[in-house]
Amino acid sequence: MTRPSMQRPAMTPTVVALPETVPFVGPEAQERARDKAFRARIGANENVFGPSPKAIEAMQLTAGDGWMYGDPENHELKVAIARHHHVEPGNIAIGEGIDGLLGYAVRLFVEPGVKVATSFGGYPTFNYHVVGFGGQLVTAPYRDDHEDPDALLDVARREQARVLFFANPDNPMGTCSDAATVTGLIERLPEHTMLFLDEAYLEFAPPGTAPPLDVEHPRVLRFRTFSKAYGLAGLRVGYAIGETSLIRAFDRIRNHFGMGRVAQAAALAALGDGAHLREVVGKVAAARDRIASIARANGLGSVPSATNFVALDCGRDGAFARKVLNGLVERDVFVRMPGVAPLDRCIRVSAGTPAHLDLLAEMLPEALAEARSASG
Amino acid sequence: MTRPSMQRPAMTPTVVALPETVPFVGPEAQERARDKAFRARIGANENVFGPSPKAIEAMQLTAGDGWMYGDPENHELKVAIARHHHVEPGNIAIGEGIDGLLGYAVRLFVEPGVKVATSFGGYPTFNYHVVGFGGQLVTAPYRDDHEDPDALLDVARREQARVLFFANPDNPMGTCSDAATVTGLIERLPEHTMLFLDEAYLEFAPPGTAPPLDVEHPRVLRFRTFSKAYGLAGLRVGYAIGETSLIRAFDRIRNHFGMGRVAQAAALAALGDGAHLREVVGKVAAARDRIASIARANGLGSVPSATNFVALDCGRDGAFARKVLNGLVERDVFVRMPGVAPLDRCIRVSAGTPAHLDLLAEMLPEALAEARSASG
Repeated sequence: MTRPSMQRPAMTPTVVALPETVPFVGPEAQERARDKAFRARIGANENVFGPSPKAIEAMQLTAGDGWMYGDPENHELKVAIARHHHVEPGNIAIGEGIDGLLGYAVRLFVEPGVKVATSFGGYPTFNYHVVGFGGQLVTAPYRDDHEDPDALLDVARREQARVLFFANPDNPMGTCSDAATVTGLIERLPEHTMLFLDEAYLEFAPPGTAPPLDVEHPRVLRFRTFSKAYGLAGLRVGYAIGETSLIRAFDRIRNHFGMGRVAQAAALAALGDGAHLREVVGKVAAARDRIASIARANGLGSVPSATNFVALDCGRDGAFARKVLNGLVERDVFVRMPGVAPLDRCIRVSAGTPAHLDLLAEMLPEALAEARSASG
Repeated sequence: MTRPSMQRPAMTPTVVALPETVPFVGPEAQERARDKAFRARIGANENVFGPSPKAIEAMQLTAGDGWMYGDPENHELKVAIARHHHVEPGNIAIGEGIDGLLGYAVRLFVEPGVKVATSFGGYPTFNYHVVGFGGQLVTAPYRDDHEDPDALLDVARREQARVLFFANPDNPMGTCSDAATVTGLIERLPEHTMLFLDEAYLEFAPPGTAPPLDVEHPRVLRFRTFSKAYGLAGLRVGYAIGETSLIRAFDRIRNHFGMGRVAQAAALAALGDGAHLREVVGKVAAARDRIASIARANGLGSVPSATNFVALDCGRDGAFARKVLNGLVERDVFVRMPGVAPLDRCIRVSAGTPAHLDLLAEMLPEALAEARSASG
């Protein structure tokens, strides 16, 4: 074959402008770099208590049917989710996790020149999608470790933002606003602004965190997932709830055969096992308490959490928290931390099993001592 | 809550212009409409012979680990695929099936105003992505039921197309070009044009169908899948092979945690079971012969196939073929047909089990007689 010209057509200006950085490095990549497995995988807010045994059984029974595409309409799962929330199937869009759905939702509304309001230090994958479609992020700071609806609304108004992202409960701090606060945010939403309300961690939050579902509202999309409380992060199932014409718009752009057959079966079974969900939520609450008490025992604060993780306040700056985090990682405890100040005074610890948290309790004093001695 | 304004911010002009139609209706939707299951699911080119028992076992063993996100780098699977093809892991991008990867690849290069060359009647999901990102399709007709490299190159040159899509073997006709023909296409590719070479059905094709992999070529992306010969359509795993800087570009836009953990495990195990693959390919070849012989017995032609399906030539126009198809569907045989003339003189039958094809042999004469009598 003759050598081809090395010319290549240009990628789009939006793609060319994108960095090659990624929102998160996986624990597996860290394990490969360390050449050693973590003993406590409590950094990605996964549900260590696992999926419902019924979901596991559903996956095992469906495995042999893996040669069939999943139903592109996700019909059975969609009907079950709609019934669960007392809405219509036409109010539900199912997709490849909240990450996948946020990508679709951003694509519906964002193009170069469009502004999007979010909290400074909020969910990086949402930002990744916004920038990925050429949007411009405009931010409001957290207030007292909470996403701040008033400040976000001010930014959205001032900047004519087309989308406002609000996670309740929040990641990475784990805090939440009550239903009245979120309702206030919705009521004051400008006409030019969509609200993307990320409720990935809702099942862990106290009753009264979520405002009632209003699927008539033309500017609110709510996002839920099977990755957290349902323990199915590795199966990729999330859903959006909203007004029917909004939901239908996903059909114009989504990967119609993107939902796996095994994944659909797993989610359907998980949704049906409320007892397991309640058990998990109880275990997570106990783990949160234990993490806070480990923090206290080490003279650290912790941020009250409505999620399956706790932000431990290391009490100094980001550089210090990074040292504590590195000390834990070196001691086989996988944790993560927020990316920007002032949130990055904290490290983020996911609800682990008692054995994971024993290891945390054992290793945190050493990691702290090392960080303090290095910092003087 | 006060009633909100019914105003909604505009979606992007590209999205607003999109139809609500979808590339394919799933067999499940048809079954719901019929209120009756199909007895032969041989319309979606799925692999009825199923995945490797090792893949099934891998899924069953991994199900309990479904609470963990899949490795976002797909490291183990990527290394295994690279080794399988004697290329580097940096030449492989893994994604949510070829459909997902085609979406990403289109997004890299296509924006409003960009032209994309493909065959008139070629793979609808590719077209869906092109239009979805605002691109404009320019087409060349099939020639003798084959995608036509010369005509596609002419169109690409004339229209300054940024991407040329070529499926080898082809869907929906099942024909293929030999390696020399594809090499000729690659050698004559204009400098302003990327080739997206969809090889989803390659494992079913005769030796000598695929040109050697040249991962230095800056303008060729090749697409493979675990959905067809490997029997894992319901798990959503495909990959692209290409030059490293092209492959890295996927990292700028892909859903990094989009690959399921169970899916990765299934694909890895499937890739390792070459014996099963060979067995499936043999069964598919036998099924193709049987389908062609059923066609002959009914006085119909069939298009020689290098895939796991056969286009049965019903010998008249699209309206007639549609009647034959409907007659089969009414008799519990799920098949599909090409969307445009002259391809739509055919119905497309996937390689079925002997029992499926017994049903086809039983029902085709009735469906044909009915269609003929209705058409006069």
